[in-house]
Amino acid sequence: MSRYYEDFEVGESLISPGVTITEASIIDFAFQYDPQRFHINTEAAAKSPYGGLIASGFQTLACAFRMFFHLGLINETGYGSPGIDELRWTEPVRPGDTIRTKVTVMEKRESRSRAEWGIMRLGFAVYNQKDQEVMTFTTIAFVARKS
Amino acid sequence: MSRYYEDFEVGESLISPGVTITEASIIDFAFQYDPQRFHINTEAAAKSPYGGLIASGFQTLACAFRMFFHLGLINETGYGSPGIDELRWTEPVRPGDTIRTKVTVMEKRESRSRAEWGIMRLGFAVYNQKDQEVMTFTTIAFVARKS
Repeated sequence: MSRYYEDFEVGESLISPGVTITEASIIDFAFQYDPQRFHINTEAAAKSPYGGLIASGFQTLACAFRMFFHLGLINETGYGSPGIDELRWTEPVRPGDTIRTKVTVMEKRESRSRAEWGIMRLGFAVYNQKDQEVMTFTTIAFVARKS
Repeated sequence: MSRYYEDFEVGESLISPGVTITEASIIDFAFQYDPQRFHINTEAAAKSPYGGLIASGFQTLACAFRMFFHLGLINETGYGSPGIDELRWTEPVRPGDTIRTKVTVMEKRESRSRAEWGIMRLGFAVYNQKDQEVMTFTTIAFVARKS
């Protein structure tokens, strides 16, 4: 069930289910959106400094958000975001890796311009099956307040 | 033809071709990666503060990079990126909007750890057909030096 602004606590963390990133999904995503050779070409990727195919960072980002959304916490109460800060791709995501998203509520405040919204800063961290951090960023989320 | 690090000049801007973001592409992308109701449901979107369907910011981001890559400048010479800073979605992207990417070379320096790489900070700005800025961010790009 969707949560409201008041239901989130600063400091709490929410952990998503995992998703396995296949070679096919890496190449499909990258062929459309990020066709750098180490994302779409296993031969070229093997000769690159990455030593093999790696997922587009844009794919990792989109999957990370999707798996958080999958928790169902903001289905009806989320109102989007104005942006993202300090996104870092800290380890490659490779075919067969299973990633999950940990979201920590960093700050909360009521919106001044829209009384019906709360504003939260969320810290995203994405981990692979070896518990290596593969991506981090922070974002602002607009969430409905209880009326 | 691909450019090397030495071929980019601080201050120069590169402008991509445009791409039209259709309603179908907005819903397809969002249904997989960002199924917030104002990205996948025209009825719910019309009742939302956005007043109609808008593209996922992750789609705008991926398309912005793809259209820059489309210029062919770093096909063979790009080596990826460690991250993104200060990403802002400044206007909604709506069905039928045509977006293009302007990339400005903000800074350049040689890599200390990899002599064969140069490091550039690039400023991305994405515009719609009305010349409204819809997204901005900066990123670091690793690019091959002439050997």
